Amino acid sequence: MEISDAVNLLINNALTISRIVKGRPFSLIGRPLANAITSPVDRPPLDMSHVDGFSIRSIDSIHASKENPVRLRIEGCIKPSQNFKPIEPGKAVKIYTGGYLPPGADTVAPIEEVEVEGNDLLIFRSYHPYENVDRKGSDVKKGDILSYENEILTSTKAALFEALGIYEVSVIDRPVAGLLTFGDELTDVPEEAKSGKTLNFLSPLIEQMLNNLGCNVKYYGIVPDDVELAKRRIMEALEECDLVLTIGGSSVSEIDVASLALKEISEIFVKGLKLQPGRVGGFAIMNRKPVFTLPGLIHSTVNVFNYIVAPLICYIQKIDYQSLIEKLEAKLSQDLTLRKWISFRRVVWVKLRAMGDEFMAVPRHGQSSLISLIGLSDGYIEVPPSIECLKAQSKVMVYRPAWMDPRILK
Amino acid sequence: MEISDAVNLLINNALTISRIVKGRPFSLIGRPLANAITSPVDRPPLDMSHVDGFSIRSIDSIHASKENPVRLRIEGCIKPSQNFKPIEPGKAVKIYTGGYLPPGADTVAPIEEVEVEGNDLLIFRSYHPYENVDRKGSDVKKGDILSYENEILTSTKAALFEALGIYEVSVIDRPVAGLLTFGDELTDVPEEAKSGKTLNFLSPLIEQMLNNLGCNVKYYGIVPDDVELAKRRIMEALEECDLVLTIGGSSVSEIDVASLALKEISEIFVKGLKLQPGRVGGFAIMNRKPVFTLPGLIHSTVNVFNYIVAPLICYIQKIDYQSLIEKLEAKLSQDLTLRKWISFRRVVWVKLRAMGDEFMAVPRHGQSSLISLIGLSDGYIEVPPSIECLKAQSKVMVYRPAWMDPRILK
Repeated sequence: MEISDAVNLLINNALTISRIVKGRPFSLIGRPLANAITSPVDRPPLDMSHVDGFSIRSIDSIHASKENPVRLRIEGCIKPSQNFKPIEPGKAVKIYTGGYLPPGADTVAPIEEVEVEGNDLLIFRSYHPYENVDRKGSDVKKGDILSYENEILTSTKAALFEALGIYEVSVIDRPVAGLLTFGDELTDVPEEAKSGKTLNFLSPLIEQMLNNLGCNVKYYGIVPDDVELAKRRIMEALEECDLVLTIGGSSVSEIDVASLALKEISEIFVKGLKLQPGRVGGFAIMNRKPVFTLPGLIHSTVNVFNYIVAPLICYIQKIDYQSLIEKLEAKLSQDLTLRKWISFRRVVWVKLRAMGDEFMAVPRHGQSSLISLIGLSDGYIEVPPSIECLKAQSKVMVYRPAWMDPRILK
Repeated sequence: MEISDAVNLLINNALTISRIVKGRPFSLIGRPLANAITSPVDRPPLDMSHVDGFSIRSIDSIHASKENPVRLRIEGCIKPSQNFKPIEPGKAVKIYTGGYLPPGADTVAPIEEVEVEGNDLLIFRSYHPYENVDRKGSDVKKGDILSYENEILTSTKAALFEALGIYEVSVIDRPVAGLLTFGDELTDVPEEAKSGKTLNFLSPLIEQMLNNLGCNVKYYGIVPDDVELAKRRIMEALEECDLVLTIGGSSVSEIDVASLALKEISEIFVKGLKLQPGRVGGFAIMNRKPVFTLPGLIHSTVNVFNYIVAPLICYIQKIDYQSLIEKLEAKLSQDLTLRKWISFRRVVWVKLRAMGDEFMAVPRHGQSSLISLIGLSDGYIEVPPSIECLKAQSKVMVYRPAWMDPRILK
């Protein structure tokens, strides 16, 4: 099946209603907002001084000059966030940065421009209305749009919300993904891997990739190669999760447990994708929930995840998966000839090398069974179905999706 | 003080020895590796089949053809990861993908190209040595460099390590940052913010920014404006943390508690940076640990964090802070005139707008006191000291550091 058809089939047949959860903005950073957010208040709520000085009526200052200072009477002091009684003509009130101007005052004379004599203030120039004043609502106006629906909440946005008194927001909850691995030869325990078994390094990798796309993960362990058991475990996981992923047991050999189980119990069952590596990947839909069958060789596993799982996970969270993929233009370092699969979308992992202002993409050779292929690469390129050879120096687009956690220090 | 001088002073005088911690690769994703990692093994450890079929000696197949098939005797079956006894001339051993070739066998005839008659195998063409075989060490050779020192561990790299039997790595531990806030007008409790106090939204913002740069954070709460108390709390925090940040209480007014306290107790005390906004920021060094004084207005707070705290935090973790800043070329949407501070590095936050293939940077006006400035921007530009006006359409570089958590779904 074509990748785009697979994704559409999933979106149209799987239950993709997003759950909403509420909480304090700072506790929900990284989640998509369930609705647009507008400011509930003006900020500042009143005209506010942005210097330390004296709040006055500008009209009282119009005749002031160096030679003929105007003398005003100081009456009290306003601290930040305090309200104050109206100012009378001929009076001045001391004010700090962030203090609200008393009703009647419309300007502030900075402390360094004035002189104080006992209770009198001397001012030496005239002040325009609203000099040194941040007007009410000049920062944010009541009703201003602060965030759009489905925007991912960032820490600076959370700070803005809380500063404006928005102490609760609704976000799209994390989907819960169930993860099962098949393969009698596998173990999750390093000690056992030292004595004959193969360490299951794909489950923790896929778990991390799911986390990086916003999912909570329930890991159901390694399921023995037994079709009846596989059916029970998959149904159990589906009961508790929004989507389920199986790894391994999906090849064409005798021990294709995941596919055998799903063929029997699912409403829709798709095996085979026009994707190389990854052609034996597929999915099923049961009770409107998707079950993905990821192949057990790393390059195929990751490809099927990237092309059909990731878009669906993002769709559930109302995020465009494309927005989570960093795209870098590069030039291919050498000719790239691709074997057969000419009607397939093919994925080639590359190493990036900076060459002055440009990047060279060095393709990594080898079978999809090579475990080092992805771990030692910086991103991948796509080769469209019809092309059999890409020439050295061709422009290519290198993709680095968010699940690769590039440049993130944790 | 110039920013670069401040950073050098900090690096040269503060204790910047990184702590090392060990653990399983998958538990340490996002941390910088303490040393280069090389492969302890060949992978595959032996010649391995990458198809399902029959492992044979290529020499036994040289006379095979469609018309005159060669007949070999099938002796047993090799499962993935199993070792097997040596193969004798004229014999074949069934093998699955991932199975190790028996000693003596050097090629694999795929299942779809052969016929089985009872215990006999018929092959219809000759096979080259190592056809359908992944050679020992062809994926990774013992001693191959897998990661460089100080490289940030990614999930795909962790998968590679565990696949190669590297179950423990050493990484640079998370620095512990202490955080204190000054300001009698502040509260951490939304309920109290509704009745007169100002919500302290800067501490959770800075906490998040510290997390995003790999720090663990200890929050010591809001400290009353009292110099003696400030001294005690700062010293307490320094005892327990690798670095300390204070927010607020560092202006030039009467209530500059953080600076008053630090001036008395520190060995090195710097107040004032050639950075606008942020000129009242500074730092002290005590017992070779840095204490940063961040101003209490958001734009200044964030600037001082970005220009002197972030580089030091990264330095401690042996990461170049520049590598954590995404840089985007854009064109300025309008003339940008900057008031005074001409010997200062000035920072202007901008909104990005896509215009075809290009980005326009729309500068956000206003005082550094505007709380919406950063929350509603996409990144910032720097204006060098000597320039008073940047013309519309000028090329500018827009910076988006990792602490802004751009494009991350959590």
